[in-house]
Amino acid sequence: MPDNAVETLRWRSDAIEMIDQRLLPATVTYVRCDSAATVAEAIRSMVIRGAPAIGVAAAYGVALEALRHKDADPASFQASLDAGIALLAQSRPTAVNLFWALKRMRAFAQSLATLEPAQVAGQLLAEAHRIREEDIRINQDMGAYGASLLPDGARVMTHCNAGALATAGHGTALGVFRSAVTQGKRLSVIANETRPFLQGARLTAWEMVRENIPVTLVTDNMAGYMMRSGAVDAVVVGADRVAANGDVANKIGTYMVAVLAARHNIPFYVACPLSTIDLTLETGDAIPIEERDAAEVKGFRDCIWAPEGVSVRNPSFDVTPAELVTALITEKGIVHNETLMAGGLSSFVDSVS
Amino acid sequence: MPDNAVETLRWRSDAIEMIDQRLLPATVTYVRCDSAATVAEAIRSMVIRGAPAIGVAAAYGVALEALRHKDADPASFQASLDAGIALLAQSRPTAVNLFWALKRMRAFAQSLATLEPAQVAGQLLAEAHRIREEDIRINQDMGAYGASLLPDGARVMTHCNAGALATAGHGTALGVFRSAVTQGKRLSVIANETRPFLQGARLTAWEMVRENIPVTLVTDNMAGYMMRSGAVDAVVVGADRVAANGDVANKIGTYMVAVLAARHNIPFYVACPLSTIDLTLETGDAIPIEERDAAEVKGFRDCIWAPEGVSVRNPSFDVTPAELVTALITEKGIVHNETLMAGGLSSFVDSVS
Repeated sequence: MPDNAVETLRWRSDAIEMIDQRLLPATVTYVRCDSAATVAEAIRSMVIRGAPAIGVAAAYGVALEALRHKDADPASFQASLDAGIALLAQSRPTAVNLFWALKRMRAFAQSLATLEPAQVAGQLLAEAHRIREEDIRINQDMGAYGASLLPDGARVMTHCNAGALATAGHGTALGVFRSAVTQGKRLSVIANETRPFLQGARLTAWEMVRENIPVTLVTDNMAGYMMRSGAVDAVVVGADRVAANGDVANKIGTYMVAVLAARHNIPFYVACPLSTIDLTLETGDAIPIEERDAAEVKGFRDCIWAPEGVSVRNPSFDVTPAELVTALITEKGIVHNETLMAGGLSSFVDSVS
Repeated sequence: MPDNAVETLRWRSDAIEMIDQRLLPATVTYVRCDSAATVAEAIRSMVIRGAPAIGVAAAYGVALEALRHKDADPASFQASLDAGIALLAQSRPTAVNLFWALKRMRAFAQSLATLEPAQVAGQLLAEAHRIREEDIRINQDMGAYGASLLPDGARVMTHCNAGALATAGHGTALGVFRSAVTQGKRLSVIANETRPFLQGARLTAWEMVRENIPVTLVTDNMAGYMMRSGAVDAVVVGADRVAANGDVANKIGTYMVAVLAARHNIPFYVACPLSTIDLTLETGDAIPIEERDAAEVKGFRDCIWAPEGVSVRNPSFDVTPAELVTALITEKGIVHNETLMAGGLSSFVDSVS
């Protein structure tokens, strides 16, 4: 990794440490998790966020729970593992990578059922490491595909943080930008601040500034102004879950950006690993949308600006219909709008899996 | 005024006091201004904001400057008055009500040129009082017209604060809501928080909570989600300047809300007094858009969350093309989209002026 690369998760001999994304960019500190419960709490409280990163963290959560119980008898070992997986599954509802990683870890554990708990635990840790390494490689492959879509000099808007911090490294949408820059393209980024958690202002802007990729921060409601004034050549965002018809659940506000991009004939790309595609759901309407605490909307951290007594809505995600998606960028290639609209996403996934 | 009415500006024997809108809702305090310079600074620093309120404040600024120099000889009195008007004209560029009020005060002063400075000053103060009273009456008339557009039970989204705080009282968009409630309609309001200055969260929510009008606060990027989920029946916003073709300059993000409303076939109404319509500009492209300090986008007050070294854009307004405006609501009647698109705004204004 380059010197200035962000280490979202780092393994210590008996724990996973995660950079505390609630405190960035002012404070760089790591939260130590040594069990499924502590990992689940880190996901719930958004110490770590971003669909791929949540998946990797959950895999470590399963491995850590296995390690904690490696000296138990096989039956209680299995019961503890199941309980840990159940706890992790309840941490956040929208990003499918969480359930994808838990399913993969559970299936892997089942395939090792003849081994001693200690051996299973060791193997599960190795599998978590593999998921983490694969995630970085996948992002690099996705980045290469995505970069081919961006012209030299492109001014690209992104929403939320689909960066190194949202993954094990490199990033999905920001991985596309990194790959384009590595290819020698001049690129500048427009980061929407992404209320209420401000992932754009705090995380995307921070990642880009560290790597000297030109970045301009705007409030979310400036997206239309920027597009209308001709300042945006393309939009690239990440995804939390993509349904079989190509509908995309992503951070709240993504739908608004997609509608504006369509009005201005600006291509709208979604960078998503195959693990984010959920073929079990026909359309985006079936994707569960998390509603978070009202306090997030009433202010930020200790700075509260809303009056007492006001009601609040706080949906954390929205769904962008496939018709507004110019292309999905995956690690196995690009799926264009025509394919999505013709119902071809599932055949694409089958053909590359 | 009802007990819970907000007093945006209040006259004291030798000064105008303005509620400090930078500190609401946590702190209710008034800033005292006794000259054109102090009024101009209050407008520039957003102690007072909102197009009609800025116009009223500017009128008092002219009157106060006249009172300060009432014992001067006629030539220096006139020079001081001109300098004060020039200073006020530089305070903010987008809201046309500022220039409208200055023009009216200047013309009135010219009509009194045969009087002694002290008499002119007294008359200018009376004119400022009239502008203030007229503004409240205009908002009530506008409110009655606007309320007729909203069905009983309507869930209405608004952006920014076009409330009592943006005017001398009653409000433009929020005046429509108040009038509808007074007519006995059940109404609920969805307030977009309106970054970066948070007029929606701090001012609109506060005004509605004080009057027991149900209000739900959302971040700006939730507007699309709310509309797509069927939670919005209409949008009503204010305006800072309306061009002759019906294009509307209003708080940044208004354009985004209008585009989303059009996609979802939700009526998009703009409440604007005639003083906000600028027939000298053919289209909205000619409206000057203020770009404010980067610090506003990097955080809020002392709470800074953006990383050092990030570039920022901070346009304070955007332009919504007339095609997206279902109707303008004025104090003299409603101007529907068909009239705007047929180029009929200027004849409407002529016919009612």
